[in-house]
Amino acid sequence: MPPRPAASARKQRSKPTERRAAQRWVWSFGDGRAEGDRNMADLLGGKGANLAEMSRMGLPVPPGFTLSTEVCRYYYEHGRNYPRGLTQQVDEALGAVERSLGKRFGADENPLLVSVRSGARVSMPGMMDTVLNLGLNDRTVEALARASGNARFAWDAYRRFVQMYADVVLGLKGGHAESSPFSAALDALKRERGVREDTALGADDLRELVRRFKAIVAERGLVFPDDPREQLWGAIGAVFGSWMNDRAVAYREMHSIPSSWGTAVSVCAMVYGNLGEDSGTGVAFTRDPASGEKRFYGEFLMNAQGEDVVAGLRTPLPIGELEGRDPRSWKELLRIQRLLEKHYRDMQDIEFTIERGRLFMLQCRSGKRTGLAAVRIAVEMARERLITRDEALLRVPAEALEHLLKPVFERRALDTARADGRLLTKGLNAGPGAASGRIVLRADDAEDWARRGEQVILVRLETSPEDIRGMRAAQGILTARGGMTSHAALVARQMGKVCVAGAGELEIDLRERCVHIGPTALREGDWLSVDGTSGEVFKGRIDTQPSEVMQALFEGDAKARRGELWRAFEELMRWADQTRVLGVRANADQADQCKVAIAFGAEGIGLCRTEHMFFDGDKIDCVREMIVAETREERERALAKLLPLQRSDFESIFEEMAPHPCTIRTLDPPLHEFLPHSETAIEALATKLRVSPEKLAHKVESLHELNPMLGHRGCRLGISYPEITAMQARALFEAACAVRRRRRKAVKPEIMIPLVATPKELELQARIVRETAEQVFREQGLRVPYLVGTMIELPRAALVADQIAASAEFFSFGTNDLTQTTFGISRDDGASFIPLYVCSEIFPADPFATLDTEGVGALMRIAVEKGRAARGELKLGICGEHGGDPRSIAFCHDLGLDYVSCSPHRLPIARLAAAQAALRAGGKRKTRRKAS
Amino acid sequence: MPPRPAASARKQRSKPTERRAAQRWVWSFGDGRAEGDRNMADLLGGKGANLAEMSRMGLPVPPGFTLSTEVCRYYYEHGRNYPRGLTQQVDEALGAVERSLGKRFGADENPLLVSVRSGARVSMPGMMDTVLNLGLNDRTVEALARASGNARFAWDAYRRFVQMYADVVLGLKGGHAESSPFSAALDALKRERGVREDTALGADDLRELVRRFKAIVAERGLVFPDDPREQLWGAIGAVFGSWMNDRAVAYREMHSIPSSWGTAVSVCAMVYGNLGEDSGTGVAFTRDPASGEKRFYGEFLMNAQGEDVVAGLRTPLPIGELEGRDPRSWKELLRIQRLLEKHYRDMQDIEFTIERGRLFMLQCRSGKRTGLAAVRIAVEMARERLITRDEALLRVPAEALEHLLKPVFERRALDTARADGRLLTKGLNAGPGAASGRIVLRADDAEDWARRGEQVILVRLETSPEDIRGMRAAQGILTARGGMTSHAALVARQMGKVCVAGAGELEIDLRERCVHIGPTALREGDWLSVDGTSGEVFKGRIDTQPSEVMQALFEGDAKARRGELWRAFEELMRWADQTRVLGVRANADQADQCKVAIAFGAEGIGLCRTEHMFFDGDKIDCVREMIVAETREERERALAKLLPLQRSDFESIFEEMAPHPCTIRTLDPPLHEFLPHSETAIEALATKLRVSPEKLAHKVESLHELNPMLGHRGCRLGISYPEITAMQARALFEAACAVRRRRRKAVKPEIMIPLVATPKELELQARIVRETAEQVFREQGLRVPYLVGTMIELPRAALVADQIAASAEFFSFGTNDLTQTTFGISRDDGASFIPLYVCSEIFPADPFATLDTEGVGALMRIAVEKGRAARGELKLGICGEHGGDPRSIAFCHDLGLDYVSCSPHRLPIARLAAAQAALRAGGKRKTRRKAS
Repeated sequence: MPPRPAASARKQRSKPTERRAAQRWVWSFGDGRAEGDRNMADLLGGKGANLAEMSRMGLPVPPGFTLSTEVCRYYYEHGRNYPRGLTQQVDEALGAVERSLGKRFGADENPLLVSVRSGARVSMPGMMDTVLNLGLNDRTVEALARASGNARFAWDAYRRFVQMYADVVLGLKGGHAESSPFSAALDALKRERGVREDTALGADDLRELVRRFKAIVAERGLVFPDDPREQLWGAIGAVFGSWMNDRAVAYREMHSIPSSWGTAVSVCAMVYGNLGEDSGTGVAFTRDPASGEKRFYGEFLMNAQGEDVVAGLRTPLPIGELEGRDPRSWKELLRIQRLLEKHYRDMQDIEFTIERGRLFMLQCRSGKRTGLAAVRIAVEMARERLITRDEALLRVPAEALEHLLKPVFERRALDTARADGRLLTKGLNAGPGAASGRIVLRADDAEDWARRGEQVILVRLETSPEDIRGMRAAQGILTARGGMTSHAALVARQMGKVCVAGAGELEIDLRERCVHIGPTALREGDWLSVDGTSGEVFKGRIDTQPSEVMQALFEGDAKARRGELWRAFEELMRWADQTRVLGVRANADQADQCKVAIAFGAEGIGLCRTEHMFFDGDKIDCVREMIVAETREERERALAKLLPLQRSDFESIFEEMAPHPCTIRTLDPPLHEFLPHSETAIEALATKLRVSPEKLAHKVESLHELNPMLGHRGCRLGISYPEITAMQARALFEAACAVRRRRRKAVKPEIMIPLVATPKELELQARIVRETAEQVFREQGLRVPYLVGTMIELPRAALVADQIAASAEFFSFGTNDLTQTTFGISRDDGASFIPLYVCSEIFPADPFATLDTEGVGALMRIAVEKGRAARGELKLGICGEHGGDPRSIAFCHDLGLDYVSCSPHRLPIARLAAAQAALRAGGKRKTRRKAS
Repeated sequence: MPPRPAASARKQRSKPTERRAAQRWVWSFGDGRAEGDRNMADLLGGKGANLAEMSRMGLPVPPGFTLSTEVCRYYYEHGRNYPRGLTQQVDEALGAVERSLGKRFGADENPLLVSVRSGARVSMPGMMDTVLNLGLNDRTVEALARASGNARFAWDAYRRFVQMYADVVLGLKGGHAESSPFSAALDALKRERGVREDTALGADDLRELVRRFKAIVAERGLVFPDDPREQLWGAIGAVFGSWMNDRAVAYREMHSIPSSWGTAVSVCAMVYGNLGEDSGTGVAFTRDPASGEKRFYGEFLMNAQGEDVVAGLRTPLPIGELEGRDPRSWKELLRIQRLLEKHYRDMQDIEFTIERGRLFMLQCRSGKRTGLAAVRIAVEMARERLITRDEALLRVPAEALEHLLKPVFERRALDTARADGRLLTKGLNAGPGAASGRIVLRADDAEDWARRGEQVILVRLETSPEDIRGMRAAQGILTARGGMTSHAALVARQMGKVCVAGAGELEIDLRERCVHIGPTALREGDWLSVDGTSGEVFKGRIDTQPSEVMQALFEGDAKARRGELWRAFEELMRWADQTRVLGVRANADQADQCKVAIAFGAEGIGLCRTEHMFFDGDKIDCVREMIVAETREERERALAKLLPLQRSDFESIFEEMAPHPCTIRTLDPPLHEFLPHSETAIEALATKLRVSPEKLAHKVESLHELNPMLGHRGCRLGISYPEITAMQARALFEAACAVRRRRRKAVKPEIMIPLVATPKELELQARIVRETAEQVFREQGLRVPYLVGTMIELPRAALVADQIAASAEFFSFGTNDLTQTTFGISRDDGASFIPLYVCSEIFPADPFATLDTEGVGALMRIAVEKGRAARGELKLGICGEHGGDPRSIAFCHDLGLDYVSCSPHRLPIARLAAAQAALRAGGKRKTRRKAS
């Protein structure tokens, strides 16, 4: 029974939609025409817009129509009533479909059957409901049997429809689960007939099944409508209703999709791929979504329905084999896929059905792809002039470049594993890279095993903050539950761990210490291999190897350098470098890291933490001697020993980096970190330093701090012990002079004072640096240009940046500490609640991974404005972890920083993200303010 | 030889001073006239301006003249040359003095002798140099002997002059120290003459001494000028030169005095109080500077010089006894002191000399006074209508009120101690209050001794960060070195410890474990009493008692309530309350603290920390049970036990405070703080809670944080465990309803959510509070008005205050944490460098004591502006320690906060400071925004 427009609606406040006389609520497509097009996804949903577009292109699309998202909005704004005129528009559209196909909806002869599907502006996979085969009843089923000449097919469609309708529209839940009454009825019938497979049931059996299914519905006091029109409105109402179901609401909250967007409903004539060996169905990609290779890629099944391809009950055939089965459809499909890619100017994911030799396109959309494929497709499409270089740059998610650097499974070993059927399941690709290890089920054990040298894969139902140390110890993480924003996924990405999350087939038996994946049982300690780039999980061990890009970059592997992926990567990076305005630097503390940084395109060092050098070999003893010193004289004696060691560290860094600038930070961490803490270690050190263990223990104790992050560290050390800063400056300038003389290349040290909160701190420390520089230059008879600047890593520094700029020639935003202090959250301790905060949407993202533009960003803006106002030529950079995060980089671009600095491995991401930021900011190719 | 104006000066760039023809560089006074007046301290220095003023008033001032600070500025701006015309102006002014006295400078008969003194705009005690008896040489000394009829006097003056001139002008250092060559020569002469006292040397001896002194000068290649004019210009140059000596520069840096102010030089005719028994000298105050009592107070010595009174070699007489010695001078002095107080409208500190029965006023200035005296003098002067009430309010340094609340020595015991000569020395009154204890010389020992129940006084040369725990353990602190901003002074004031700093006579012998003060030797363990309000140090034990104000307030002591001090205090507080715009509240966690708060004038509670209640009795067990809970159900069981206990806490607080508002903060500290940490304590708790010790130990371990200040605390706990917030809200609203019903007084709870960084956190917590409130009101059939708000204690909260104000009905600035995070300094750990930072002027003050207006204040301003823009009626307060600091209170007033909240004992300070802030802000008596 078609619903009537709500009487009350006429009196309601939001009249605008109503007043427009004869508003179009329903948009038809089919027969080479369509009322909508691809740009109307907001109104028609992604699916509806693409069906309309394909129809316009003259492609064979089963005719149909779309109820727009405005209907959905109206529906919810008017107490679940439909707008006036909707019924009539639906009737008209349905009539057009009937005319197009020469079929009639609900007719006893040649009946029209339709599918009813949801379709929002953006894809919300599995979140909403669909009804197929709609229009069947006891009469039309017979007509379908006659029309198809296949009674079994018709009754099979009917029993599926009854079950689906009961589930989706009537709310008879449990429709798909094993325990559902429908499954039980099916099983009972099979037992009665003495058969094992559904396919062994004949038309009469299925007719009996339909009877029993209807009885199940009736038993529950529900009514299965025989009238196809009533079925249609029931299904439409169910789809609109599904927009507000719990799953959909949760998904929207998770992805910040406003509920006001609403869903569209597409009603489409059914076509069948299971009408015999001249029918079939398939899914395909216009290019390989895994490698990006330009080849038509996909799979199909003859005499099958779409869900058969997906469900994996029958093994689909590679798409190329269609040529042998149905050469005409193959040729047509090839033509269409080329056309679609050209038309959409992107790799397309398509679904098709062949009904008795006639090809129908059921869906097309931009295809999901791996990071590798994204790079190769973008670059190759630009080479083909299908898209511009700028578009190519914008097409690759910057983060995806990480995939290109992560280890992969050895090709041959992987092939063997696949061939041996060792692929167990597929979950979400939550942390890229490939890893093998022994299964461990508890985080504590993971730590223990790792400590004794085992490679482990931590396998958990889901992870929680207590598992963090175990996660760190593991090679990879595999969870049964949770999505891309689950605790496991968030933490793994933060740690750079391989992670496959939400592998639903996984069952963990903690008592028996074993794991079941489908039919496979594995015991704790067994080898498992996980590919966090693809989400695949393999039984046994698969060796890994560096990625093609890594081989090309660092192993001078000639073969890798001929690889398409490497060439695409290199080209993309070149384009990015030509496009970006931001400079890119690396955070690197030692010469070997500098090498990596240069290979990844660093234009300098943005942060060299001098203290990391302090732990090396003999140095730690001198450092400890310095710390334990009671007088300035003693301290200076220890520093004198440290001087040549630091100098040679700096020399090796300048050697690698010249002529690029190097930002070197003076001593930052609390001294406590350098001292031993166990009793025996203290005694050993006491002997070495020839002091009493009691005295040393007392010193260690006295340096202990309750909140070392907020303690005696950073420039506070240099203020308390100016001789430390002086020694570091001397080592640095002596090294700079030595390398300048030896290499005749420019050496550009930039000395950075950490943890400055007040102008006076910087002034005092900068004076020491500058005085030392002058002294060294006099001694060496040589000058080296240098800058003195500071980290802006405390809120106060940002707030008085104008005053600080008086002594600072550059600012580098230390956004790790700035985030810690702005939020009052220690990065070390935040793990106990940050994941909860991200899941609860209290934080849009982990603020230590992605810059908090509202809070931390506001301080940065203040600092930039005040700093530049006080000193126009002030150089500005960022050296916190955020320097390698694309969203944060975009913010840095908008803020007008000169460069970002990140860990060497994130440099490609930073280069691409910087280019994208420049393009998105309007493409004005500003020239950079200076070589930075 | 009078210097010539620098030839080069004529050509120099800074001409303005020069171009003004006949600029006045020299300002005369004397004979009831003066060219300057009291308002010209900038030009004439404090001393010169007051001498001019007294002269204008017709008071007997020895005539003289002042070289202005402009001369000093000119001198330094022109390469230490004098301006043109200066010599002539000095000559003219000197001539006037000669004419006034009928004496001549350098004359063989009746010679004029002068003093040359420095005098800056503000007093810089002991920082600059002075020359007395100038004008003496081998001829004039004889004339002086004749004129005075006292050869010994003349030669004594001469030998002092030679020594002083050599020291100050010729730079023959060591003039005053024991080891100086002049002292050695004096001692040698005394040995030769077989005498012990200087006074036993006759005129001839002193003549011989002059000869030897001059020989000492000559031996060093220096020239003692015989020409009085040359002496005069030498002395003037030395005084100007002393403006740039190390002591003066250091003092100015310490007190932020610009060196551009310069010093004036006052040249004044010498008058002598040591010309016989009809001469004398004294210092006096127009009111008692210790008690504030209105009585002429001071002391004098007949036949003595000023320095004799100060040096303490002879015991001066109480000023009243002058009446018997010289009734005419007494009468005159009485008249003058009354006149001066009335004229200056403040208590005056005066110096006078009687030369042969003729009274001369040498100096007057506003007198320094104790906090007690400040209150009494201000209130009584207002009562006398000498000053207005507003002036009275501004006259009392708010901090001084602390003195009125601190314990004092028992009057009788103190009198006895004085009478017994147990007063050992006097240092700086660095931390008010009185304390007795045993002398301990090392901080570690102080801790040990205190642990076994001893009262100790920590006696140190100076203190350093390692001494902090010892300082905390001690009753009082006494140091030999360091000023009012030394480490000891800063830390003691921060801790509220009694402290006398910089007691220069103190000598510490760490090896012998004893202390020498003058002739007195004390051993470690001996009793010592220190008065940090007066700076006095006494031998032995003196019992303490509560101050008069405390007795009147809390002991209902009728006698105390009749005391003048109490009455003055009460009146001042009343005036302050009538004047201030800011509300004042107390930080109080328990009913007894609420009582104190009400007594001190609290208008509500600004911060009630619920967790402080958690440690009480049985509660801690329930709290621990809650923390250890593994599931929500277990946790709720523990919370259910806690609920009635919390409710009764809240009831007792509401009982005390009704009808005042009470801001109650939900749980704030990390849970770790509530758990035991030693192995045995963990085992005991495990038994109690019936869990395994391993499990409990694991829990304790898992809650450990590296930086607990930045960890899982504040609202983060309430977000993780909403049931805790719900329990607290329920306890609070049930208590509020109970008290409302029982007492029929308004109960005004204000629930405050701590450590909010994002609007969503507050929104989630506020929702729990409001839902719980509605539930309780329904159950109770009673509504209680309440507010929900948040602390602004993280930089991010300030930056997004507009968003936060959407759920907040009030903000309370938690400036302790806000300072910690803005500076990135932990209050607990900062002690290791904050004193250094204050001494080095990196911080103008300890930012945890006085609000950092530039950084933290900037964030507060942002929060106030954004918060009020988003919600006009937003109530604003402060509850950090700064709420009791006068300078910070002034800032809060300017910021337009509604109230400040501080610890109960600082309420009087806050009330006065708030009144002063209102007066200083222009006296517009804004009405308060609302009862706060």
